[in-house]
Amino acid sequence: MDLNKKSLEMHKQNNGKMEISPKVPIDNTHDLSLAYSPGVAAPCVEIAKDPTKVYDYTIKGNLVGVVTDGTAVLGLGDIGPEAALPVMEGKALLLKKFSNVDAVPICLDTKDVDEIVRIVKAISPTFGAINLEDISAPRCFEIESRLREEANIPVFHDDQHGTAIVVAAGLINALKIVKKEQGNLKIVINGAGAAGIAILRLLLQLGYKNMIMCDSTGIIYEGRENGMNPMKDKIAKHTNPQNLRGSLDEALVGADVFIGVSVANLLTEEHIKSMNADPIVFAMANPNPEITYENALAWGVRIMGTGRSDYPNQVNNMLAFPGIFRGALDVRATDINEEMKIAAVRAIASLVSDEELSEDFIIPKSLDERVANVVAKAVGDAAINTGVSTLYQQQLNK
Amino acid sequence: MDLNKKSLEMHKQNNGKMEISPKVPIDNTHDLSLAYSPGVAAPCVEIAKDPTKVYDYTIKGNLVGVVTDGTAVLGLGDIGPEAALPVMEGKALLLKKFSNVDAVPICLDTKDVDEIVRIVKAISPTFGAINLEDISAPRCFEIESRLREEANIPVFHDDQHGTAIVVAAGLINALKIVKKEQGNLKIVINGAGAAGIAILRLLLQLGYKNMIMCDSTGIIYEGRENGMNPMKDKIAKHTNPQNLRGSLDEALVGADVFIGVSVANLLTEEHIKSMNADPIVFAMANPNPEITYENALAWGVRIMGTGRSDYPNQVNNMLAFPGIFRGALDVRATDINEEMKIAAVRAIASLVSDEELSEDFIIPKSLDERVANVVAKAVGDAAINTGVSTLYQQQLNK
Repeated sequence: MDLNKKSLEMHKQNNGKMEISPKVPIDNTHDLSLAYSPGVAAPCVEIAKDPTKVYDYTIKGNLVGVVTDGTAVLGLGDIGPEAALPVMEGKALLLKKFSNVDAVPICLDTKDVDEIVRIVKAISPTFGAINLEDISAPRCFEIESRLREEANIPVFHDDQHGTAIVVAAGLINALKIVKKEQGNLKIVINGAGAAGIAILRLLLQLGYKNMIMCDSTGIIYEGRENGMNPMKDKIAKHTNPQNLRGSLDEALVGADVFIGVSVANLLTEEHIKSMNADPIVFAMANPNPEITYENALAWGVRIMGTGRSDYPNQVNNMLAFPGIFRGALDVRATDINEEMKIAAVRAIASLVSDEELSEDFIIPKSLDERVANVVAKAVGDAAINTGVSTLYQQQLNK
Repeated sequence: MDLNKKSLEMHKQNNGKMEISPKVPIDNTHDLSLAYSPGVAAPCVEIAKDPTKVYDYTIKGNLVGVVTDGTAVLGLGDIGPEAALPVMEGKALLLKKFSNVDAVPICLDTKDVDEIVRIVKAISPTFGAINLEDISAPRCFEIESRLREEANIPVFHDDQHGTAIVVAAGLINALKIVKKEQGNLKIVINGAGAAGIAILRLLLQLGYKNMIMCDSTGIIYEGRENGMNPMKDKIAKHTNPQNLRGSLDEALVGADVFIGVSVANLLTEEHIKSMNADPIVFAMANPNPEITYENALAWGVRIMGTGRSDYPNQVNNMLAFPGIFRGALDVRATDINEEMKIAAVRAIASLVSDEELSEDFIIPKSLDERVANVVAKAVGDAAINTGVSTLYQQQLNK
């Protein structure tokens, strides 16, 4: 039986993948009088007096809303909020499994940016954090940045930052193998969607200087006339210092790193041969990468990562988001800021020891249970250090 | 240690009362490939092709959103969405415990009727039904009636209908004891809030004719000048056939039934003595009823019900809502209509056998585990009979 059939059967047998479970007994009237009427009034009164107590007496501090409008689900595109629900349940499952975060899917029947922002703010009293998921670009950028401003709980768009964080972690370790310096590196990112732009932003923050982004029109440069928009104008300003023009072919000449979040089977032998010595390729098109693992190695790629679990170096956001939410919730962060993301990058990279490090092992395995804990600790510390941990502030004020 | 202290401790120890649990394993890459990437695409594609499949492949069909704006929480009033969360978690717990319905609190940081309606509609792709909770009157009436019109899943405001259904069930059985006919009965309802009005409406539907409603101004009658509003104009038109005027004192003269959803210690010995023979009193002010159980019996009340678990005849909406949601979800109802509510009334009443029936046992105990099943079956059948079961319609069309 093929995977799709098995998956359909599994989903149908269970009517989804998650359920709600009580953490306290309700077996008799005494239990009931504590958990419900009349005892439940006591925590209500305490929270009404001091709203921070909601973290003590309720699930809020461990609960993440996984919010989507179903417009960019997997590679399937705009399939609507109902059809997005299996992915959101899956996400909730992973959060529970890897970092004991409780999460609930919220699939929205609206694509209006203002309305999505309003709704997420309105539902936020219940949640400790919001994970935006599978919302199409460029709407996702505005939704996330407005919510980071306006909501009083952390909001994190995993499609952007999850992949970016793992790519950045992989790159740190890959550079150790090829013994190249960050400053001299030429990096080509192909694909200017949510993930590509987030990767670009994070690598810029990490100090990579010579980056070139390509979209379907080719290299993005200042003054390009076709297929530009305000976001790409900004990209042009902050990348491509030599003002290269042309297609991906031109971009790749002398490049040290190719990062693909685009389409399958794009890279040719000529592309690889035109790159600098010891090329690093992260080919993350799903399910089929921009170049197969076999071709990559045959044509001279030194270090190859993909989004797939059946090849080495799986660049998988599962390495990032469970620990990031755990860390943010643990310190009651009000934001998931750049320092916290960078802390996650370094934590993930650190989990590959110098002894283990090799061309085929630059990032931890997706199911490595150490990862979420180590990431959570690093992210929580970064939140404290950047002053966005309300728990730490409260303890200081005591 | 007193109950409040114990409740605070219990809530704090557990950080709330519920959690999310996986129904499928994620122990290896094979599990992961079924529940998440890449297998999860299969149910997404199926649902995109046929939206009704969302009930097969996801949690939607068993998931209830417990929605509040925190404006009328218990007897505490407008304490805000965060402070309402312990009650909503408690509700979710009871739904799970008594009818295996999964439920999630959604506490809204808005009191705007239009916005609440919009939000509930927007989040409804995730849910099989919505339980409105602790929303203040009269806003709750408009919110519920608009959502029943506009949302494509059932919406039920438990504060209104839960209590009304159990009162009506208790009344059916109480009348068997006092051997009075429904047609000749004079019923006084004191309190014109959400619960009082819902009780009035349901009893009118059940054919009770001589009903008098009192608010803090006294008897509601056509042409009264003080403290009226459009809702009370409507009440005046459909009640008080003899056009009585005056206070509760006048209303109670010759009454057979008093139903209180008002304030503690309101009823005097004179009140009870002025009632008809074999008075029935449902004194449901919380936590202290309109008349104590002891006084009621001493002053001649024949059948006495309260909201309390420590006295006989606890009028508790726990008898209604778990089975109502179970029944509505089981048949994929698009509405919880009057016929379904009335089916719940009769089902609850039917659970007290003629042998068990007595002054101190007119409704089942709150923790009676038979109730939810029997109510669910009756409610589901009523949904099918009134044409609001999409599951039944689908089966017919096959």
